[in-house]
Amino acid sequence: MTGPRAPVVGMVGAGQLARMTCQAAVGLGIGFRVLAAASGESAAQVCAGTQIGDYRSRRDLLAFGGRCDVVTFDHEHVPGAHLKALERAGLRVRPGPDALRYAQDKRAMRERLADLGTACPRSARAACLDDVTGFAAGSGWPVVLKAVSGGYDGKGVWVCDGPDQAAGVLAHGIDLIVEEHVAFDRELAVLVARSPSGQAAVYPVVQTVQRDGICREVLAPAPGLAAGTAVAAQQLGLAIAAGIGVTGMLAVELFETPRGLLVNELAMRPHNSGHWTIEGARTSQFEQHLRAVLDLPLGSPAAAAPHAVMVNILGGDDPDLYSRLVHVMAADPGVKVHLYGKVVRPGRKVGHVTAVGDDVCDLRDRAGRAAAYLGSGVEQQQPQG
Amino acid sequence: MTGPRAPVVGMVGAGQLARMTCQAAVGLGIGFRVLAAASGESAAQVCAGTQIGDYRSRRDLLAFGGRCDVVTFDHEHVPGAHLKALERAGLRVRPGPDALRYAQDKRAMRERLADLGTACPRSARAACLDDVTGFAAGSGWPVVLKAVSGGYDGKGVWVCDGPDQAAGVLAHGIDLIVEEHVAFDRELAVLVARSPSGQAAVYPVVQTVQRDGICREVLAPAPGLAAGTAVAAQQLGLAIAAGIGVTGMLAVELFETPRGLLVNELAMRPHNSGHWTIEGARTSQFEQHLRAVLDLPLGSPAAAAPHAVMVNILGGDDPDLYSRLVHVMAADPGVKVHLYGKVVRPGRKVGHVTAVGDDVCDLRDRAGRAAAYLGSGVEQQQPQG
Repeated sequence: MTGPRAPVVGMVGAGQLARMTCQAAVGLGIGFRVLAAASGESAAQVCAGTQIGDYRSRRDLLAFGGRCDVVTFDHEHVPGAHLKALERAGLRVRPGPDALRYAQDKRAMRERLADLGTACPRSARAACLDDVTGFAAGSGWPVVLKAVSGGYDGKGVWVCDGPDQAAGVLAHGIDLIVEEHVAFDRELAVLVARSPSGQAAVYPVVQTVQRDGICREVLAPAPGLAAGTAVAAQQLGLAIAAGIGVTGMLAVELFETPRGLLVNELAMRPHNSGHWTIEGARTSQFEQHLRAVLDLPLGSPAAAAPHAVMVNILGGDDPDLYSRLVHVMAADPGVKVHLYGKVVRPGRKVGHVTAVGDDVCDLRDRAGRAAAYLGSGVEQQQPQG
Repeated sequence: MTGPRAPVVGMVGAGQLARMTCQAAVGLGIGFRVLAAASGESAAQVCAGTQIGDYRSRRDLLAFGGRCDVVTFDHEHVPGAHLKALERAGLRVRPGPDALRYAQDKRAMRERLADLGTACPRSARAACLDDVTGFAAGSGWPVVLKAVSGGYDGKGVWVCDGPDQAAGVLAHGIDLIVEEHVAFDRELAVLVARSPSGQAAVYPVVQTVQRDGICREVLAPAPGLAAGTAVAAQQLGLAIAAGIGVTGMLAVELFETPRGLLVNELAMRPHNSGHWTIEGARTSQFEQHLRAVLDLPLGSPAAAAPHAVMVNILGGDDPDLYSRLVHVMAADPGVKVHLYGKVVRPGRKVGHVTAVGDDVCDLRDRAGRAAAYLGSGVEQQQPQG
């Protein structure tokens, strides 16, 4: 460590977000630890300070936190009561439980955003079928049912065309909300870093392209976005970060619609929509998250190139990513591949490819080809949707 | 790791070069291990695959190499006989002993470069004072005495104004060569990556600024370098890499002189003159070294910005780098700080700062201020020499 006072950041969770945060911690000369469920997890493979434990165990969390100066997270699944227990034990928890709640509980998030005057899709409780049909009477079908907690990558989200489908989802017996099905033009995301001192930095607004509920592609900046809309999205991100008291990274997923920007989801951690910042911005979201939770001054979020395109690598049938890396590197020496060290399963995010440069169509083509080949071993182009 | 065939690279030595190579290995999804003398060493702090051992012990090297698919180095101090023993044991050693010899033995290097027809400073054996005075009779005083092996950062190099000083150096009883004191215009460096398959990639030529034998500053590309000279330097680097069969990174330190380019030193590893590539090039020298030693296709060495300036942070009297980081980050959100986690000692390289952008004077000023403040805690500007 770099002198007597370099602090230790502990991240609960050891997925790819922790892995890339670990990578960013190296340059800052700080200590970095992860709490991993198993030694084979993505971040545990590369982190010198891995502790094995269960994020659902208060004892494991307290033992982990006791060896760190700041505790942060690569997912939102740590129970709020445990987070409060960490705070009571005198630990710095960033983001804190009062903010993180709005990334853990979609009903609380919708209520808080309404209090802040933020435009969102229409939303209501969905405790029974009458709630859903009553909501649909106003908003029309289809409607979207969402699990109040625990969803990610399209899991926990159901688009229902009518009462029969809604009844099927309700039969799962989980806590749900119902939302209008928004006819959006496209999806955008805005990333904000905010420190305990209240300093904030906002990245250029990006377009995200999802398929089957999974982010496939991110275009930075969002091509052709009206300057006024970009500023509005950035102001929205800053206002939400301040309004709910986030510390660390906040990702705000947005719908661009004819009636303006609507907030879809919040995440309080480095986010898939910000992976492009590793090569495409002066300060990556991973370094920025560390600076924010340490209450260090934030880095410049300015773009480092006119355009950056990030395409996720989704696993296919063949687990041997490494042997395909050779071909991708030979075909295009200019793309940047990030592999997560994860066991390949069909449809699982196992890495991403970033290309930066001047021509967004060229970058989409190149990053898309590389990611598709790495994922499936099949030469194909990403749909340019 | 990323599927059944992802290989493990082992790096002997755990200084900052290994630390930054470890950081680059994360994205490739490969395994990475270091052989460290102690767990507190720069790379050992951050590398999940640290093995403690002695690079001078054949047994330790063989045990380390046996757990790796490729063995490479963050310094040139492993005895050649041990390297050959690793090869006899069936290990892939990259660069191999036949190439690495020319970075270990300056006399062998000068002879080999002469065979390749490469222009170098005039040079001779210096076994006794008569050798030195005889050489000076031709080249004039001062002359430069250099330890044949083991020197770095100005150590092992003595500029002698006359026979008395030379006698003092000879009294150390170490193996020496004598070289002419070159009246150069400036120092340049060219970095080449070369793979076992013979693929090579060459980076833009940089200017290096040394003081007291230590690299202080690197300007990429070298400002105002004639296009023909830049191409000549790159061709020289490529020819040397091929001529001596380097695998991995090769750094060629050059003098720019009125009589043309002269080769000063060779290093076969990532090099201080290439730290700018982390932010300033499409592929960093650390990723490139890994790609080369793994015989993966090389990445693009193209610049990612018009200019990059790297300034080393040299330790001062106050060991608490981290508390000064706050001020540097607040003063300039756009510079990139890399700390090595090393114990601060006066004059020791403990980190570096890189700034990239359009205006080289502005970048020198910003990176220089940040590095000076981090090192000494004193606000000062680097001389713009």
